Order: sequence, then structure tokens, then C-alpha cells
Amino acid sequence: MRFRLSSLVNEFELIRTHFQRDPLDPSVVLGVGDDAAIVSQLSDYETVISVDSVVAGRHVPQICPPDGFAARLLGRGLSDLAAMGADPKYVLLSLTLPTFEPGWVDHFADRFHKLCVRFGLDLVGGDTSRGPLSAHITVIGHVPKGSAISRSGLRSGDDLWVFGSDLGGARAYLDVLDGLESNHEVWAERYWRPEPQLVAGLSLRGMASAMIDISDGLCQDLFHLLDNSVGSATVKLQSNLIPFCDDLVDRFGLEKALEYALTGGDDYCLLASIPPGLEVPGCGRRIGMVVKGESARILLDGKPLPSKWQLGWDHSR
Amino acid sequence: MRFRLSSLVNEFELIRTHFQRDPLDPSVVLGVGDDAAIVSQLSDYETVISVDSVVAGRHVPQICPPDGFAARLLGRGLSDLAAMGADPKYVLLSLTLPTFEPGWVDHFADRFHKLCVRFGLDLVGGDTSRGPLSAHITVIGHVPKGSAISRSGLRSGDDLWVFGSDLGGARAYLDVLDGLESNHEVWAERYWRPEPQLVAGLSLRGMASAMIDISDGLCQDLFHLLDNSVGSATVKLQSNLIPFCDDLVDRFGLEKALEYALTGGDDYCLLASIPPGLEVPGCGRRIGMVVKGESARILLDGKPLPSKWQLGWDHSR
Repeated sequence: MRFRLSSLVNEFELIRTHFQRDPLDPSVVLGVGDDAAIVSQLSDYETVISVDSVVAGRHVPQICPPDGFAARLLGRGLSDLAAMGADPKYVLLSLTLPTFEPGWVDHFADRFHKLCVRFGLDLVGGDTSRGPLSAHITVIGHVPKGSAISRSGLRSGDDLWVFGSDLGGARAYLDVLDGLESNHEVWAERYWRPEPQLVAGLSLRGMASAMIDISDGLCQDLFHLLDNSVGSATVKLQSNLIPFCDDLVDRFGLEKALEYALTGGDDYCLLASIPPGLEVPGCGRRIGMVVKGESARILLDGKPLPSKWQLGWDHSR
Repeated sequence: MRFRLSSLVNEFELIRTHFQRDPLDPSVVLGVGDDAAIVSQLSDYETVISVDSVVAGRHVPQICPPDGFAARLLGRGLSDLAAMGADPKYVLLSLTLPTFEPGWVDHFADRFHKLCVRFGLDLVGGDTSRGPLSAHITVIGHVPKGSAISRSGLRSGDDLWVFGSDLGGARAYLDVLDGLESNHEVWAERYWRPEPQLVAGLSLRGMASAMIDISDGLCQDLFHLLDNSVGSATVKLQSNLIPFCDDLVDRFGLEKALEYALTGGDDYCLLASIPPGLEVPGCGRRIGMVVKGESARILLDGKPLPSKWQLGWDHSR
């Protein structure tokens, strides 16, 4: 894979300086700088692949700090791998910039590479072009054959678990961006530095019957698990078990805090259905249980959800 | 890999109807519709990966026919695989649309899928969001271990070959778009339906010492081969051997035709350096030879290139 020539000022120099690195992993046969990248494959493993975008004005504000842009981009992609129980291996970056601002690109690339090193990712290719600010990444990981955790398999009798904390924090930060609330450090962290739950994901191989990452809101993503469940099922959630983000209940009251935690997107926690009696990793919180299907498919403290909560989070607001 | 929820009207329906298909290949363990796709790996093969973008207003006109958009997008990506001698296997699509226009998406998806079937590609994942019209694809192919053709290895004594015809046609079509020329069917074809040279690419495994696809202009891409050559080398091109696009010399005269053929981008032919005496596939044209390095690195009919030709094609014009 290559970065293509474009009219960005000094693009070859930009790529060499900012994006070309020695591979971390010997499986990278050929990295950035050719028509395509070449990676070697491990037998007995399957490849897991996801693509995600961050578009300014939609997934982040139009004027966006470069380090936050990089962290949200990689966080979104890696959260998908975490939700499959996959180990991250490679990433490809397609970056569209309105103008070439060396300082912005410098900070973006710096954060991007630091996160790559932290998560064991090799940047093996990309593309740059001029246009409205957006970035698209392809993340590639692997799992031992047959061990990936899909959205299918939730069954009545399972417990429902969340891995990762601070539900609703990213949603609350949108109120800060809109000038409706004063800033809160933890909310800003949730929004600008989503933490992909890779370790939890790996530890749930062979344990979770179904898993998804919470990116469109817990309720909306839970519906995806229910749509793919084994037999008709209903989930009973308990509000006192929800791992709210700091300060959410104090600042908004319980009802709005629940709405933010259960419908706000971008928390990038994992939501897993796990048969009872297993030794679940300590970072998880049991938030409810799955029972045989009833008329309402999600019950909160025994009552159906407000209907507007079922629509999921609209990233464009 | 999944397509994410967005505020596009009826996006889940759109994805189910337009983008979810039964896999062509049994190596696809899990396709569109989960957090990530899963594919199984062939031992003794290496994976070849490239990402490419098509941004409206930059790579195509702001108002763009959906079938041409799809064909240029896949053509760009597949041409990278062709340049490595790789077999296409999977594609992921990240699509950003300003509004949801069912007719546009319908035609885009229709052309996209037809081309996928034609080239043996499985669409295994994607992402949709709202924003300025652009699309980013990740193409994944494979090659028997060690048989990929990189940009490195051109050496003096090799011949220089082009695979694919109609050089300069896509550049000439830009003059049509600008209202400077009346339309010419072949130029429009070159621009809107670039033909990735996959068969030629495969047949050159074990034969080409170096290869690149011509996307930024023949001279510019030739410099990349020279930058990666074994020892210092100069290429001698012969203008009478250049496979011009139809009508180019008649309409513009030889000098401008040469400029368009040698510097215009987007032809997506292959440029390969091949040791003499080999039985080169019939679709190739020998356009010159590689000699020991001299002061000028590319000579056209014995003379150095005009200096402005060496800058390469600016896709943003």
C-alpha cells in the first residue's frame, strides 16, 4: 500500500517524516511506500477486519484537535476488533485534509504512532488527499481459528455484562461542546480518548456467547444482539447496576443520566452475553439478565424503555 | 466489519438491500453485518492490502455519476493489486454521502457489485456516514509467498514495458470536462471506467523485476521505479513506441499528445521493468530500455524531459 501523490504541500516529505516507520512486527513483509503492503499470514488464525471513519462536523466538531482526532479514529476501529476478541495487527489510514498545516499533521501523526505502538499496530499503508477533513482507517487483527466472538448466540439464561466504565460520559461531553454544561475532565476523556477494551475482549474468547461494542448507544446495540439471538429473548436491565460516568447522576438527575448512559453513543465499551456460573474477568459489570422472549424486548427495572430511547444515537446530532 | 448506524434515511435498509450479499468465496467466515469481518487464510500465501480514496471535487467532478464513481473507486484500488501481481479477494467500503438519494445509491451499489463479481471480490465490510461525497476502499488480495512484484529491482539492461493501452486518454477527458474539447468516447471510457490490469499483473510474477501502476503519470511513476532501482539507471523512452490513446495526436499534435500520455495521471496501466529475452505477455508494449545511470534519468528520443513533466500529475488540478 502506498500514500499517493497529491497536491498537498510536500506530501512525499510529509509521508516519509510522519508516517513511514520501521515495522514493529516481522510479519510485515512490505510496509508503507509501494503500491500495496504485503503481510505474511499465521496458519491456524483467522483475519478480522473493520473499517471506520471520523468525519469532521459529524463524528467530531468541525474544528478538531489533532490528537483527539487520532485517538477517536483509532479508538473506534480498535473497539471493533475488541468486540470480536481479536488481537490488533495492522492499520491503514486514508486521510483527507483541507489544507496542509504542518503543526496539525505533526500532532496527529505523533498521537497516531504512539497509539499504534501502545496497541501493537503496524501502519502498513494509506492514502492522502485534499478535501474536507476526514479520516478512514482499516484495522486488521487476528484470532485463533473459530474463536472470534460475533453478535450471534445470545440466549435466555445468559447474564448481560458491560466491560469498560463511564457510560454516558461521551454523551454528556456533547453538552459541553454545545455550551450547555461546564467542562468535566472525565467526560472530555471519554469523548476524546475512547479506550478500546482489547484485553477484556481477548479474555472473553470461549466465554461470551455474543458481543458487540457500544458505539451507537447501549440500547441500540443491545437490539443488535437480540436480533441475532438464539430464540426469542428479553433483556432485563437494572438501573442500579449501570456503570455511570462520574458526576452524571449529580449533574443531570437519575432519569437523564440513565438516558445518556443507555442511549448516548461513543462510549466504546463492550456489551457481552455470558452464560451464568463462569469466572468473568474482574473489569466487567453485570448489568442484567436474559430471559425467554416477552412482548417488550428490553425492560429497565421491570418497565419497557421509553420509545425514543430505542432509536439509537444519531452521530450527526 | 459492519456498516454503522447513521442518520442517513433508512440506512439499515439501505445496507441490507444494497450492500449485503452472500459471499462468493468460502474463505469469508463472516461478512457485512457484525463489528468486523472474519476471513480465513491460505497457508503459503501472503496478503496484499491497499487503500484508495475518491473525493468528489478532487478525483472526480463535484457532481458525479454514480456508476462512474464506483468504477473509478474500484479501478484505483484494483490497479494497486495488479501492480503487485496479486489476486483480488476482499473489499471494504467506507462511503460518505451528503444526503441519501436512493437513486444515486442504487446505481452506485449496482455498478459496485457488478464489478465485484467480475473481479472475484467479496465486499466484507464498510462504514457509512454523512458528509461531503467521498469513498475510501480497502482492497485485499493474495500472492503465493514471495511472488509479489514490488517497485524495487529495476536494473540496467532491463526493457521497460507498458500493459494496458490508451495512455493520455484520461488526461484528455479532463479537457472535455473543462469544456475545452468536444467529447470522445474512448477518453470518457478511460476516465470513467479505468481497467485494472489484473491478468497482466498475474502473468508477470517471476518475470518483472519491478512494477508500478501508472496513476500519477508515466514519468512520475517511472521516477519511483528509478528511485528504487538496483544501481544508478537511466531510462531511454521512444516516442514512436508509446501506446497513445485514440485520436490524441490528431487532436492535439505530437508534442501535447506526448505530454498527456507521459504526465497525465489516472490511466491505471502497469509499468514494468523486465529483463530482455523473456516471453512477455502479448498485451504488453515495450516503450524503452534501461541503461547504466547518466546525468538525465529519463531520456525521450535521446533528450532530457521538459522539466515541468517531472512534477507529476496533480489530481486536484
